[in-house]
Amino acid sequence: LSGHHFVLFLQPGEKNNGFDVLYHNMKHGHTSTKELADFIRERATIEEAYSRSMTKLAKSASNYSQIGTFAPVWDVFKSSTEKLACCHLELVRKLQELIKEVQKYGDEQIKAHKKTKEEVSGTLEGVQNFQSITQALQKAKENYNSKCVEQERLKKEGATQREIDKAAVKSKKATEMYKLYVEKYAVAKSEFEQKMNETSKKFQDIEEVHLFHMKVIIESFSSTIHEIHLQIGEVHEEFINNMANTTVESLIQKFAELKGTGKDRPGEFLFVCFLHILITLFK
Amino acid sequence: LSGHHFVLFLQPGEKNNGFDVLYHNMKHGHTSTKELADFIRERATIEEAYSRSMTKLAKSASNYSQIGTFAPVWDVFKSSTEKLACCHLELVRKLQELIKEVQKYGDEQIKAHKKTKEEVSGTLEGVQNFQSITQALQKAKENYNSKCVEQERLKKEGATQREIDKAAVKSKKATEMYKLYVEKYAVAKSEFEQKMNETSKKFQDIEEVHLFHMKVIIESFSSTIHEIHLQIGEVHEEFINNMANTTVESLIQKFAELKGTGKDRPGEFLFVCFLHILITLFK
Repeated sequence: LSGHHFVLFLQPGEKNNGFDVLYHNMKHGHTSTKELADFIRERATIEEAYSRSMTKLAKSASNYSQIGTFAPVWDVFKSSTEKLACCHLELVRKLQELIKEVQKYGDEQIKAHKKTKEEVSGTLEGVQNFQSITQALQKAKENYNSKCVEQERLKKEGATQREIDKAAVKSKKATEMYKLYVEKYAVAKSEFEQKMNETSKKFQDIEEVHLFHMKVIIESFSSTIHEIHLQIGEVHEEFINNMANTTVESLIQKFAELKGTGKDRPGEFLFVCFLHILITLFK
Repeated sequence: LSGHHFVLFLQPGEKNNGFDVLYHNMKHGHTSTKELADFIRERATIEEAYSRSMTKLAKSASNYSQIGTFAPVWDVFKSSTEKLACCHLELVRKLQELIKEVQKYGDEQIKAHKKTKEEVSGTLEGVQNFQSITQALQKAKENYNSKCVEQERLKKEGATQREIDKAAVKSKKATEMYKLYVEKYAVAKSEFEQKMNETSKKFQDIEEVHLFHMKVIIESFSSTIHEIHLQIGEVHEEFINNMANTTVESLIQKFAELKGTGKDRPGEFLFVCFLHILITLFK
């Protein structure tokens, strides 16, 4: 995943909580997955509301006055606004698909964490072995000390040679036992450290894989948003082109054709109509 | 405004309503201005709601888990979402400025329409003149007819030369009067047509200036939207760059520094802590 392998070995930290931190972080990994799904869901809800409002705005545009020279411009607005609504609805659809992927990953994560918990259980044996050997070492040390003290006491108190020899045998036996447990302790300690390193490496791998997965989801999120952003840009461009093509002249011509006013000079027949209008105008 | 001057002369249309159509269209011009302001206002309201939702989403991002390796990513989301909210709020501000301009234009339009109404009142005189001359022409024609009939009747009935001469004088006078009114009618008709053409030209000018002004407003609207669209694109790009810089390695390193777990090999002191964790893990 990363160029060089940077291992998160367990360290005590301020509160001697290295392993704790790593273990709980694994659990936080699942929390962050759920939160990322929540974030994308909230964004999708916002986009859906925006799309609905745009559809309503497009309806407003089509409800505006259909008489007058300006009327055809509302069709341009309506069409563009409907397309914007579509772009944001497409974003909603894609975000909802992404949420499903995030949820699927979250489920896989729970399974992986359960598996890790089982795998880490092996480390417990190493710990228990180390713990019992440490206790046995402590007992062997105490036995060795008391046997040495006993041998010295008998010597000082002038005990019989038979008694002193007997104590020397016991002391030698305790010394050998103590040596044995020191060796056993060294082996167990090495095993313990190895398992602890393996476990922390496992936690680090889980963390790296998780963060990598989260980054892949976020890249999918931002590429979706980028894609829709480009589509919206195209809608804006189309609107600008459509408005450029809707010239003042074309609007007046369309209106004249629709209403039956035209280019020819007026005839005498207009007199009555004209009079009627002037009367309307000044009443 | 337009390349060649296409004049909207009054034409009867299907219902002989050419002037009516043009006059009412002038009034519709003001309706379309108000509707354009309404459209932009509704769009501004939508953008404001979107901006508010984005601010809320940014707050959600900052409320997500601040523990764990993923935490710094929420800062990237939060910052980007806040910037998106700002872009849309900037759009709201610019659209509100534009609405003010549209309203100002609407007020000017009302004044211009009042002025036009006054200017068109001159045309009424031409119409009234034409109307009274048409009536006088009709009377002169009737008078001429009756005088001619009277003269013929006297001739047929063998009236005195004095009576016939007297009728001939009256007939000649009626003929001259009729000719006079025919000439007057021709002048008045020409004047009437000229004023009617001037008036329809005025309506056309008003229409052209109005549509030109509306197109300027719409261009301002689309350039504002385009500008904000580019800003939003920059926010997306910045997000993608920030996410690219937020590597898995950097997140783990930041976490290790923050929590005090580190690169060094663990010491014996971890034993108690490690045991504690395993107990936690399996209880």
